[in-house]
Amino acid sequence: MKLITGKRKKIWNKLDFQVTILGVNSAIPAHGRNQTSQYVAFGRISFLVDCGEGTQHQLRRFKVKFSRIDHIFISHLHGDHYLGLMGLISSYHLNNRIRPLYIYGPKGLDEIITIQLRHSSTFLKFPLYFNETSQDGKKLLVELENIRIFSFPLKHRITCTGFSFEEKMRPRKLIKEKIVEAKLDISSIHKLLQGKDVYDDLGLVFFSQEEFCHSPLAPRRYAFCSDTVFDLELIPYISGADLLYHEATFMEMEAHRALSTMHSTARQAASIALEAGVKELLIGHYSGRYMDLQPLLLEARDVFENTQLSEEGETYTIQ
Amino acid sequence: MKLITGKRKKIWNKLDFQVTILGVNSAIPAHGRNQTSQYVAFGRISFLVDCGEGTQHQLRRFKVKFSRIDHIFISHLHGDHYLGLMGLISSYHLNNRIRPLYIYGPKGLDEIITIQLRHSSTFLKFPLYFNETSQDGKKLLVELENIRIFSFPLKHRITCTGFSFEEKMRPRKLIKEKIVEAKLDISSIHKLLQGKDVYDDLGLVFFSQEEFCHSPLAPRRYAFCSDTVFDLELIPYISGADLLYHEATFMEMEAHRALSTMHSTARQAASIALEAGVKELLIGHYSGRYMDLQPLLLEARDVFENTQLSEEGETYTIQ
Repeated sequence: MKLITGKRKKIWNKLDFQVTILGVNSAIPAHGRNQTSQYVAFGRISFLVDCGEGTQHQLRRFKVKFSRIDHIFISHLHGDHYLGLMGLISSYHLNNRIRPLYIYGPKGLDEIITIQLRHSSTFLKFPLYFNETSQDGKKLLVELENIRIFSFPLKHRITCTGFSFEEKMRPRKLIKEKIVEAKLDISSIHKLLQGKDVYDDLGLVFFSQEEFCHSPLAPRRYAFCSDTVFDLELIPYISGADLLYHEATFMEMEAHRALSTMHSTARQAASIALEAGVKELLIGHYSGRYMDLQPLLLEARDVFENTQLSEEGETYTIQ
Repeated sequence: MKLITGKRKKIWNKLDFQVTILGVNSAIPAHGRNQTSQYVAFGRISFLVDCGEGTQHQLRRFKVKFSRIDHIFISHLHGDHYLGLMGLISSYHLNNRIRPLYIYGPKGLDEIITIQLRHSSTFLKFPLYFNETSQDGKKLLVELENIRIFSFPLKHRITCTGFSFEEKMRPRKLIKEKIVEAKLDISSIHKLLQGKDVYDDLGLVFFSQEEFCHSPLAPRRYAFCSDTVFDLELIPYISGADLLYHEATFMEMEAHRALSTMHSTARQAASIALEAGVKELLIGHYSGRYMDLQPLLLEARDVFENTQLSEEGETYTIQ
């Protein structure tokens, strides 16, 4: 019976859905805080979202296995969101990476990478594919076994997109007692876990997945909004997300500055979370003027209770 | 009398000549060690030499006043020597810098900077001047009040130069006892410090600078050799330097790897120091394979006793 429990656990673990924060500061690194980058792990698949300067240092610092990252998403071409990318590519090259790397970002990023590879006479040891993002509505960027990643437009000073990580289906959970009672073999359990019934030789349902499995949970969704002015138009793209990351560069007292630099306040981020009906809000991209971040958290919680500060090295699970 | 001592001390401090190490690792950051960058302070003038990723973090970490840096020298376009430059430029811009910034580096660096400014729609708030270096012998890059900086060719896989920081003259030191005895006024002291005699109304020498000042010390020189294969041809460019920084990526056991990657071993760096008759050697640019750096130091000291390991955050004075 141990085998079954073990198997279930293993399959379940494969689809953990977590965000590890690598950098939380905006514009300039300050108070020991790095610039935007997040490591998103979905089962055994890993993604990097934005890549501020020093991201590869942070990946090492927090002991993240970044050789597993195959897809990197860059929201826009302000330095605090992408200047760590060339260093990471260079380290992959020097570490003899052979797995393909897929980069998704705005027009121009390919030119920035190409020109730097050319001037350093670097011929990459691995295939590097570039996929240009656009601000033209919600776009599917990549579809993998159990997850799809989309981009959607954000309003900022330059072309900028958010990203939505959308699980296709949740793994089923077996009803352990029934499995034990019916003494199911491994092959039947696999079929049930895939949502299939098991048939007998006459083609009749022998073990029904509905009987032996809990109903699958709703697919999970993580939405990432890097740099954006307060914009109700982005709500359809993030509506109902389990976890929303939304920038909160300033406090409401600096709302005029948020508007002029096309950023958001903590209160505005919380309003978006509330309007979009998300389950949980993570704020970040803090201005260097705030050493203590608690006031930003309190301001956001005043509007949307289930808010957390993103903190470097912390991992947030999408429930 | 206190005034005189104070004045002398202040003038003297102005011309301290020091190198602060910001990064010591080669290729990939490892063991918490950053990539090449050095902050060179000459009196009140500050220079940055190479600028690996995360250099602006290191400048903050070691509390270096980097707003004072007006001249940045980049040896070559391998990422570990320049990928921190755009972040630093961006931070200067966001901090409303208005002082001009002068960058010296190989062909292509201007294109790399320009293209990134263009794609981020950044119009710098300060003038940025780019000066292309060449491998055509020793070249004067910039001449300031008391110092000249030259480039000289290094043999590496791509176009690469070293840099030589050469003091024009040393400040004179007053013979305190004689000054006190003769009750010299401030104006006369200033003249003496500038190497001028003080004349009386008849045009005769009243106070001779030879009598009241120690003979000026020989001008100091710091030579920086970033990435280079073992190359005796560079000796004329660094001969007699007070402090030589020479890369020592590998130990002698990996001499074949040093040759194939066009780097040097610790023993080779020491041999160059010995042949060039420099006073002191600083090694760095360590391969990530060495966690413990003492063996590299011992290997170098076996050939050239007055060798030190460059260590991040440490400041080395050019005596």
